[in-house]
Amino acid sequence: MQIENRLKDMGIELPPAATPVANYVPAVRSGNLVFLSGHGPRDEQGELITGKVGAELTVDQGYQAARRIAIGLVGSLKAVIGDLDNVKQIVKLLGLVNCTPDFGDQPTVVNGASDFFVEVFGEKGKHARSAVGTNALPGNIAVEIEMIVEVEN
Amino acid sequence: MQIENRLKDMGIELPPAATPVANYVPAVRSGNLVFLSGHGPRDEQGELITGKVGAELTVDQGYQAARRIAIGLVGSLKAVIGDLDNVKQIVKLLGLVNCTPDFGDQPTVVNGASDFFVEVFGEKGKHARSAVGTNALPGNIAVEIEMIVEVEN
Amino acid sequence: MQIENRLKDMGIELPPAATPVANYVPAVRSGNLVFLSGHGPRDEQGELITGKVGAELTVDQGYQAARRIAIGLVGSLKAVIGDLDNVKQIVKLLGLVNCTPDFGDQPTVVNGASDFFVEVFGEKGKHARSAVGTNALPGNIAVEIEMIVEVEN
Repeated sequence: MQIENRLKDMGIELPPAATPVANYVPAVRSGNLVFLSGHGPRDEQGELITGKVGAELTVDQGYQAARRIAIGLVGSLKAVIGDLDNVKQIVKLLGLVNCTPDFGDQPTVVNGASDFFVEVFGEKGKHARSAVGTNALPGNIAVEIEMIVEVEN
Repeated sequence: MQIENRLKDMGIELPPAATPVANYVPAVRSGNLVFLSGHGPRDEQGELITGKVGAELTVDQGYQAARRIAIGLVGSLKAVIGDLDNVKQIVKLLGLVNCTPDFGDQPTVVNGASDFFVEVFGEKGKHARSAVGTNALPGNIAVEIEMIVEVEN
Repeated sequence: MQIENRLKDMGIELPPAATPVANYVPAVRSGNLVFLSGHGPRDEQGELITGKVGAELTVDQGYQAARRIAIGLVGSLKAVIGDLDNVKQIVKLLGLVNCTPDFGDQPTVVNGASDFFVEVFGEKGKHARSAVGTNALPGNIAVEIEMIVEVEN
């Protein structure tokens, strides 16, 4: 339980897996890859973090939202694979930032997730990623991130 | 031909695989995964369904467009794998909804595809997914969805 | 070195792998799949190509930007797999075009990358893809493309 001890040391409490209210699921495993659904950001009270970065939210607020998403993704991952020590590599993120057309700092926003994964998983946390903008996200959430993870067995 | 019989019972006629007019293909198989290109929505006459959801199209029209895309994706999948009973799991969808910046109900729109996959494939149809907005899609189509599917062999 | 000879014949000089300045990497290999990060377009002087297609840039300028991205992706791929002859198949592209809401020719823009891959890799270069619009990209780059590649061993 090395990874979970590290999360505890960081004072991070994992949420339960996201519970979609439709015909899809938070994550699907196929072979050694786990594909996680796009997750939105929830604050420590479980409320969605909403607003467009570059207008209602600053870059730093976007960064914090992305970090909260990463915590949620790890919660959903644990629900599927059980033991987080079974993570071989965080493979790929796609991060979409709800923003104004003139906003160009999506990478700094998505770093909130990337930094968290490396903080928790070390070298195994270093991933490929895309960080892009979008004009609109569900319920006006600030950021949405989907993820692919390779597990050991 | 269990899945194809179910489609027939539902009165669904599969279109032939999408025919891209460029240097790409509707689907590529790699190992047991099939990666399908982003598909747009065509109505029963084969005409593209266009317009921005939240402006020219309602949420329900978006839902119907997403359902039409799902039918097209299954058509392209059949062209690659032959027998649809060979589907092990619908793994992942990325659904992009052409919408106004204040639109926030992308999940309901993409449910048009998710519901169809579960209706046809049952538990094997339950997938991970992301449903997001975008300011523009090719030819102003209403929705675009790409998909990853795991096949048995 | 068949592929590299073809690149040389085409007068293409591969850039070194993209060097992200954060906790992510240009590409991650998982099994026989290589997942490449979203890459932006750099001209032959290494300068980023910026602007929204449909406003500051024409479709043809977008096409050229996508071609430049493809060259960069191949550079990053070579850095991970060493020998480009080891490519079994270009599996999947996701191309995002920074554009105005009324722009609808994302496919022609992303063809700049698709055409390049087929020019270089032949049948192995034919991929699944999605070509979509977005309201904003990092640093206002014109296009961003991520890629999945299958390698032989």
